[in-house]
Amino acid sequence: MGAPEKIWNTQQGNRTERLGRAGTALGPALAGKIVSSERIVDLLHAVLENGDRVCLEGNNQKQADFLAKALTRLDPSRVHDLHMLQSVLALPEHLDVFDKGIASRLDFSFSGPQAGRLAKLAMSGKLNIGAIHTYLELFGRYFVDLTPRVSLIAAEAADRQGNLYTGPNTEDTPAIVEATAFKSGIVIAQVNRIVDTVPRVDVPADWVDFVVQAPTPNYIEPLFTRDPAQISEIQVLMAMMAIKGIYAEYSVESLNHGIGFDTAAIELILPTYAESLGLKGKIARHWALNPHPALIPAIEAGFVESVHSFGSELGMEDYIRARPDVFFVGPDGSMRSNRALCQAAGHYACDMFIGSTLQIDLYGNSSTATLGRISGFGGAPNMGSDARGRRHSSAAWLKAGRQAQADSNRMPRGQKLVVQMVETFREHMQPAFVETLDAWQLAEQANMALPPVMIYGDDVTHILTEEGIANLLLCRTAEEREQAIRGVAGYTPVGLQRDRRTVENLRDRGIIRRPEDLGIDKRQATRDLLAAKTMKDLVRASGGLYEPPKRFRNW
Amino acid sequence: MGAPEKIWNTQQGNRTERLGRAGTALGPALAGKIVSSERIVDLLHAVLENGDRVCLEGNNQKQADFLAKALTRLDPSRVHDLHMLQSVLALPEHLDVFDKGIASRLDFSFSGPQAGRLAKLAMSGKLNIGAIHTYLELFGRYFVDLTPRVSLIAAEAADRQGNLYTGPNTEDTPAIVEATAFKSGIVIAQVNRIVDTVPRVDVPADWVDFVVQAPTPNYIEPLFTRDPAQISEIQVLMAMMAIKGIYAEYSVESLNHGIGFDTAAIELILPTYAESLGLKGKIARHWALNPHPALIPAIEAGFVESVHSFGSELGMEDYIRARPDVFFVGPDGSMRSNRALCQAAGHYACDMFIGSTLQIDLYGNSSTATLGRISGFGGAPNMGSDARGRRHSSAAWLKAGRQAQADSNRMPRGQKLVVQMVETFREHMQPAFVETLDAWQLAEQANMALPPVMIYGDDVTHILTEEGIANLLLCRTAEEREQAIRGVAGYTPVGLQRDRRTVENLRDRGIIRRPEDLGIDKRQATRDLLAAKTMKDLVRASGGLYEPPKRFRNW
Repeated sequence: MGAPEKIWNTQQGNRTERLGRAGTALGPALAGKIVSSERIVDLLHAVLENGDRVCLEGNNQKQADFLAKALTRLDPSRVHDLHMLQSVLALPEHLDVFDKGIASRLDFSFSGPQAGRLAKLAMSGKLNIGAIHTYLELFGRYFVDLTPRVSLIAAEAADRQGNLYTGPNTEDTPAIVEATAFKSGIVIAQVNRIVDTVPRVDVPADWVDFVVQAPTPNYIEPLFTRDPAQISEIQVLMAMMAIKGIYAEYSVESLNHGIGFDTAAIELILPTYAESLGLKGKIARHWALNPHPALIPAIEAGFVESVHSFGSELGMEDYIRARPDVFFVGPDGSMRSNRALCQAAGHYACDMFIGSTLQIDLYGNSSTATLGRISGFGGAPNMGSDARGRRHSSAAWLKAGRQAQADSNRMPRGQKLVVQMVETFREHMQPAFVETLDAWQLAEQANMALPPVMIYGDDVTHILTEEGIANLLLCRTAEEREQAIRGVAGYTPVGLQRDRRTVENLRDRGIIRRPEDLGIDKRQATRDLLAAKTMKDLVRASGGLYEPPKRFRNW
Repeated sequence: MGAPEKIWNTQQGNRTERLGRAGTALGPALAGKIVSSERIVDLLHAVLENGDRVCLEGNNQKQADFLAKALTRLDPSRVHDLHMLQSVLALPEHLDVFDKGIASRLDFSFSGPQAGRLAKLAMSGKLNIGAIHTYLELFGRYFVDLTPRVSLIAAEAADRQGNLYTGPNTEDTPAIVEATAFKSGIVIAQVNRIVDTVPRVDVPADWVDFVVQAPTPNYIEPLFTRDPAQISEIQVLMAMMAIKGIYAEYSVESLNHGIGFDTAAIELILPTYAESLGLKGKIARHWALNPHPALIPAIEAGFVESVHSFGSELGMEDYIRARPDVFFVGPDGSMRSNRALCQAAGHYACDMFIGSTLQIDLYGNSSTATLGRISGFGGAPNMGSDARGRRHSSAAWLKAGRQAQADSNRMPRGQKLVVQMVETFREHMQPAFVETLDAWQLAEQANMALPPVMIYGDDVTHILTEEGIANLLLCRTAEEREQAIRGVAGYTPVGLQRDRRTVENLRDRGIIRRPEDLGIDKRQATRDLLAAKTMKDLVRASGGLYEPPKRFRNW
């Protein structure tokens, strides 16, 4: 009615403009979708617009490092105020773009080694944090209110049409590309090599706009590798308690393990201790988990029936190829991982999440946040929360639900087992149990809407320390819960303030269980129980198929 | 040492055997991956083994109907005890395989029109139900303990290499195929046509083993289409309460709507009522939702900024193609849907789920289970549960969390809005509010571990009826909660047994809000508020781009 007609394809039009600018800028340096690596900065200058939401593939392991570096070389007077979307901030370049005024806003999941510098940049005002997410949540927002305009991703190889082969580290790539390509965005892939035919297609060429061969292969972090030589006897004891007091107690068949020595110890005593308890085929059959090297002996012993993975792990390639009955692999023999689908599996199809933390408060809230560091969450909030949409039952899930609701009139419901495993004192004699999480102070420092809690006390079912297991499912009041936590907090100030009578009562009721209550002989808790005591043992257990990265080898 | 060496690639070996048998059986009827349709039964006889886990693509909308029919033609003396995995049981053939003794076990999500017959087969012992799932949970299990050995899927077209084009109904296909193809399973696709070049690649040929052109195009159910002519003035009133009392109250920006006339009414008064309240750009901006025709007027009015979909909707193809700024579309112009990713988005990136139900009990548990019917859950448990792994904040999520925790010492946490919308009496004057859900009796009948609850009272934040809104977040005791529910239950027996004084007190405290408390003039609640009153109006609003299926047209 006189008003100008609304245009409904501005994104498609804008995409055409960007592709046109790239063609003009690159000329013969662009052959089909293939861009010569020296011209990468020109491509980015041509394609990017101020304020763009840019998804840079920084995964847990695989890094689009060449493209990350190229971003830092942009002219901030031409490209600025980028809104970066990233699973993981791992490389210095991921923050350099903020320092240089090229990017100004960030939504992410995990920052790991960059956590300290990230906090400084955030306080300085150079970097505005949108939010910190769990991985699947960030992927979800890619399809709702954080759809990327341009994505910069990494793959192992491409053919000349642009079909991508990611090899074992498929990780986040399919989710990122799907959100971008099907909303008229631009997808740029760095690859290690360009070949005539890719070993298999992980991402179809239709979904990819530009491919550039990076001068050096993309960086991959062996994040899940733990040297068995560093596992302590305390960790062996805790692993024994986990297996006897939780895995066996609930018949846990499907599960996810967090990163760290605590859970590596569990993996390494499955073929020894768990086997001696007759648990093979009864627990730990199905895993949503990266291919942890520490899992090799349990796989070889026939404990592990299947493993689906978020990403791969450096050095495990040949071993995985030789164990296709266990792992998900493609026709080329290498693993297919997929972080989005594995997180869905971890949330909905696993009976248990067990992982370590840094701090636990009197309500059972746990956090890895420490002052001056914004480290993010990764996958833990998704794995370590009750899957309230779950409807299929298993023995473990039903039993946890019954324990939680024993005194209640509520509709019966199952519950996920969420176990936090922690020694009462961590490095430098810092108590792991505290009255107040550092997260509160960090939230104030960094102006967050809520304290950055990794796993909420409401979702935690068990806390396991060297002193014993506190079963929070069985606690009926906030006071019982507090005393159950104090009762396994050892000689920390929180532990020392326990009410001895209440704690003994909780122990009588099986809410707190000490090693002796579980029939565990502490003298048996030695490193001899570890099915592999060194990296070399892991290699041997794998029949020579596992090839640890150099930093883990002293031979 | 002396024991026979364990074989680790039995699945790959078995896959090779199956492919070999297919080659032998089909001979020249197999050209590359292309199978002639008359030989489909031979292919299935060759490829299937007794006890196989078989995923048959029965989606919410798209049906692999040719392959479903072929399955029923198998010889049960050759192939039996199949374990069927299916999102949706929609067609009679889906149950015929059990009747005929070809399949014996079933894991699924939703059964819709087959719910009655499914219950009968389950009671007769011919069909053993593993579990009933929400969609994302079932997909998750495909990667953990329910990996398909053979998948039978549907696509729009294939090229001669086997690359698949699904068109707008991509739906479950990528998740199913990924789980099967990367665990040495067999993927068989029925397609409507075989072409030289597919308009875009939705599933790479590498992931597909056999392609068969079905004699007729696969069936698609227009599940989300509601004729505005059938919307009542009560529904308009309820929609007004939803918008003023919930959407505006919490500033709900991202959301999912269930199926039905109740939520269609909301969609249709966004451009009229919500617009008059000045809410454009403030509410309902981002959607995880199929392309509901009832959403057309709100899209045209500029209310809706983005829509990501689980699947498409028949008749909406041209409209979607013309509105790519709103929908996710491929370079070919047609929608790319993805049920797994959209469910992740709905769970983690949406502030609210609002949907209808059949029965609500005094705790707020709701269920669509009725006696003699095993109808399943679909996506509701996933959308309609608090996403406890969510960590990013929004105004709506923070406010809901604050209301839930106002009197508590707990760690602050946001909460998803989960709204159940229901008229106090449903068809045949059945009360929607009951003391005890039929689900209890059904669980006993069908020997389920737990009553089949669609959405648990713990997760419901608001119940909306024609009498008003009960805000369960603000209830501090089980008694308050019960009275809040009774207080909106109208003239049902549950409603009549309210304690009048308590209910008035709850109303004073804003826990119950009547239309007049919200400043809603009931006289304004007429069909005149609907931006489209008929199917023809929807077509007109779409500029003639929406083409309703025949059954919805009387012109």
